[in-house]
Amino acid sequence: MTLYYLEDLLPGQRFFGNSRILIDADRIKAFASEFDPQPFHLDEEAANSSVFQGLAASGWHTAAMVMRLIWDSEFKPAGGIVGVGLDELRWPRPVRPGDELRVESEILEVRPSKSNPSQGLVKLRTTTLNQYDEVVQLHVGTLVVPKRPETPN
Amino acid sequence: MTLYYLEDLLPGQRFFGNSRILIDADRIKAFASEFDPQPFHLDEEAANSSVFQGLAASGWHTAAMVMRLIWDSEFKPAGGIVGVGLDELRWPRPVRPGDELRVESEILEVRPSKSNPSQGLVKLRTTTLNQYDEVVQLHVGTLVVPKRPETPN
Repeated sequence: MTLYYLEDLLPGQRFFGNSRILIDADRIKAFASEFDPQPFHLDEEAANSSVFQGLAASGWHTAAMVMRLIWDSEFKPAGGIVGVGLDELRWPRPVRPGDELRVESEILEVRPSKSNPSQGLVKLRTTTLNQYDEVVQLHVGTLVVPKRPETPN
Repeated sequence: MTLYYLEDLLPGQRFFGNSRILIDADRIKAFASEFDPQPFHLDEEAANSSVFQGLAASGWHTAAMVMRLIWDSEFKPAGGIVGVGLDELRWPRPVRPGDELRVESEILEVRPSKSNPSQGLVKLRTTTLNQYDEVVQLHVGTLVVPKRPETPN
């Protein structure tokens, strides 16, 4: 497994997921009952007459599953995946039971940290697609990535 | 319980949480093992020597709990809390076991939808604070809110 330090990352580099997550109605409902207990995430019948026209995963459930897909992907920064925040997050399409999600990520920006010379900040755009190659989530996150430690000569 | 339609919402209006969530180490680890299985979210000892210097909740776990706190808050749009995305999300400080989180939200912008005359878009900034009134999450989301249905004369 290759671990990436700040010096290894360049804008335009792309990383692909190694796994997919199959969406299950029971997991949609279990997540929603804890974090987002709205009828369209909890009950098929109520969901059919809602704006989603059918059971849909909470966007926060999708976002959490996307974190897992990124963790399982080719993108392995040396310090782990440590996000300071997001510039953007969109859910253009609902996630349904039976959907199968995968991710693709691209580095947008790499810059040294002003406050800590041993690390830098990497802007990563991640697109999450379903089995029809439709985008269900798009987000741009900023991650802290360590510089390669100096080795004694 | 007052339900808010688009016409009831104005920039500057503020809404406060009605509940708090007490953060538990076991829940931090359970969420992380499913969605974000990094050592600093899973194991106290590994976390002590990490960038977080102690066990910390996944940012996505915090975001999901914040959704629950907003749902439990005074802010009750008529169509539910239906987000199309976020413009910004920051995690300025880690969330630790024993922390107690609460939210405060403020309307930043209200505009009619261009594509659907029966609804509009509301930009809401939510600040999540711990028991020391320190900000642990800040995010600006865009929600779909229905207009008040016309009633027959």
